[in-house]
Amino acid sequence: LAANPAKARSAPRRRPGGRSARVREAVLAATVQELAAVGYSDLSLESVARRAGVHRTTLFRRWGSREALVLDLMLERASREVPVPDTGSLREDLLQLARRAVATASSPDIEAVVRAVLSGIRQDPELAEASNQFWDKRMSLDGAIVERAVARGEVAAGVNPRLVIETVLGPLHLRLLVSGNAPEEAEIAHVVDLVVDGVTRRRNDAA
Amino acid sequence: LAANPAKARSAPRRRPGGRSARVREAVLAATVQELAAVGYSDLSLESVARRAGVHRTTLFRRWGSREALVLDLMLERASREVPVPDTGSLREDLLQLARRAVATASSPDIEAVVRAVLSGIRQDPELAEASNQFWDKRMSLDGAIVERAVARGEVAAGVNPRLVIETVLGPLHLRLLVSGNAPEEAEIAHVVDLVVDGVTRRRNDAA
Repeated sequence: LAANPAKARSAPRRRPGGRSARVREAVLAATVQELAAVGYSDLSLESVARRAGVHRTTLFRRWGSREALVLDLMLERASREVPVPDTGSLREDLLQLARRAVATASSPDIEAVVRAVLSGIRQDPELAEASNQFWDKRMSLDGAIVERAVARGEVAAGVNPRLVIETVLGPLHLRLLVSGNAPEEAEIAHVVDLVVDGVTRRRNDAA
Repeated sequence: LAANPAKARSAPRRRPGGRSARVREAVLAATVQELAAVGYSDLSLESVARRAGVHRTTLFRRWGSREALVLDLMLERASREVPVPDTGSLREDLLQLARRAVATASSPDIEAVVRAVLSGIRQDPELAEASNQFWDKRMSLDGAIVERAVARGEVAAGVNPRLVIETVLGPLHLRLLVSGNAPEEAEIAHVVDLVVDGVTRRRNDAA
């Protein structure tokens, strides 16, 4: 990853739908399956290439390391799996975001990736960096929900968009991680209500 | 664990400060060190016994399985490491709770235990049950903060104490898990303010 950032970053500029995009899709799908099967510590580029039906030199040339592979996977999933809602209402946007995030994080393949990444962070600084980049990007994208609510006057300026999103998603993800069970709809709604009441109260106090 | 619940549960009724309590302390400390060194999947009662300087039959008789050992460790830590604040103010109680929870969870030995447990839950239903029991107990103890705020009239009855605590601790624990870095004091205070504003607003709306 750190040794080879240009290669990972060049991927999105390739022609979408072409051979290169199909290779990437096959390789990332195989990475998910390998992570679920053997975990991060035993992940090898050779076995991912075999499972994807791609020549190993193609895989080594394009990604170079398993850290780059997992980072590319996380960045691709970050933008693909959970689009950012834009309904015109902070509460509705956060509800949709939270429901989709719970559904995504509790799908068996994604849950395996997340647990594999979290277990390896202490032993692997490059994986920690990839995890950080993933979360930063995700929080920056989702933060648009709060920024739009500020622009509409629903929420006072000065609130930290990232922390608002983390306060919605944190308890839901943590429950899933700790218990292995996805939180229920009523719990999702309760957390969203609590956070919306908290940020919109600041607006009213300021007015 | 499921095969032998009476043994794990009998531990707290033994005379505190006696030989039995010293053995438990040594064994649980050795468990933490072994988890940090080899992870949960390679944890063995034999190596814990060796590290603790305790005969392996003592350890097998009292705990019986590594699930029972990790559960006893989590229950002991749950009540020992993070006492429940009672300052007379919801905001101050939650601030103190959040600061202590972050300090505890980011200490290297506890962080190793948490990452080991979370990585093993999908492969091990008994570990999942232990993790659930730990978190249920912790949230039930911490929920007293919210119950006292309801009794004082700071917060409307009907709020879910557990979800309030999870909404404070969730984003902070998640940040630590994802990034490997503990959230800063300003971020802790921001999350607490958001949640306190949310729950006390309900009180004011209801009044």
